[in-house]
Amino acid sequence: MKLYDLDVSGNCYKVRLFASFIDIPLNIVPVDFMHGEHKKETLLQLNPWGEIPILEDGNIVLRDSQAILVYLANKYGGEAWWPSEAHLQADVMQWLSVAANEIKHGPGAARLIKKFGSEGDRAQSLERSYKILALIDSHLSTHNWLAANRPTIADCAVYPYISIAYEGDVVIDKYSNIKAWMNRLEELPGYISMPGN
Amino acid sequence: MKLYDLDVSGNCYKVRLFASFIDIPLNIVPVDFMHGEHKKETLLQLNPWGEIPILEDGNIVLRDSQAILVYLANKYGGEAWWPSEAHLQADVMQWLSVAANEIKHGPGAARLIKKFGSEGDRAQSLERSYKILALIDSHLSTHNWLAANRPTIADCAVYPYISIAYEGDVVIDKYSNIKAWMNRLEELPGYISMPGN
Repeated sequence: MKLYDLDVSGNCYKVRLFASFIDIPLNIVPVDFMHGEHKKETLLQLNPWGEIPILEDGNIVLRDSQAILVYLANKYGGEAWWPSEAHLQADVMQWLSVAANEIKHGPGAARLIKKFGSEGDRAQSLERSYKILALIDSHLSTHNWLAANRPTIADCAVYPYISIAYEGDVVIDKYSNIKAWMNRLEELPGYISMPGN
Repeated sequence: MKLYDLDVSGNCYKVRLFASFIDIPLNIVPVDFMHGEHKKETLLQLNPWGEIPILEDGNIVLRDSQAILVYLANKYGGEAWWPSEAHLQADVMQWLSVAANEIKHGPGAARLIKKFGSEGDRAQSLERSYKILALIDSHLSTHNWLAANRPTIADCAVYPYISIAYEGDVVIDKYSNIKAWMNRLEELPGYISMPGN
């Protein structure tokens, strides 16, 4: 199974982290992001969005880190990480949307702007970051895990950009419930960190 | 089953549309959005995000329109609308992320700014709109439906804000594949339109 990967991408890290939790090997294919390899024909044929990660499993090709988590959990991870029961699956799904929306446009965007000089509204990204962090912290005041009362792909989807939020000058010090949740996740068997962290 | 609803919300329409496709009755509870009812204690207890739709099914309470679609499809819609096979489910999931991210921050944001005077970067919302519309149009040049070669919740999640994109001055005239796909969806049994459309 091939992962078209960039080491500093939080979205790629999501996939590496979850694959490590469920102990499936990935054939990592580094993408030369700085030279725009993801925008060139070969990779655009795999993902017209021009983004990574891309997962290739036989003739299955998937873009979007949330979709890749769903695929890996459904096919290889089992019920624990991606419940099949409707209300539990929807509970996890709520957080996959948070990862795709609030986390991406909050701490994800703040980091892109600060660390990589991407265009964007820094003040807006910080405002969005603290809004979603407060909601998550409040949720975690009464829950050990984001969804379904156990570690799921919800945690794997939301954790990465929070764990590197400091690279976008987003300060998580006061969110004690988030910090405790991060510690719990970091103690799970198979946990790996972002390179450099 | 209760849907806390706002008639002009595309996210609420997603839920009404899909419920109509699978022919399940919803008890519609109109939320007095203009007077901020969604930000008051009673609704914040159901959804701390302060957003609608909210679905209540017995003691199950769900926020996020994508998660609500997953719940309804899993519990009441069956395999057709939300495939259980890993690669097909992930195919649908790719588009649920598109709905939560690119559609929300593209045509969704453009409409909020234009129609409701919401704060936001209008130029950025238009740029994002045309970028995602071009990608969707290209995808639909070789597919009748967004995912899994059949109508799924992917179509129900992406269609609403495209069907009302004109309210944000996003012009879809030149996207002939999108228009043909919209026609196909509008001909499905149970289709209902946005109020006023």
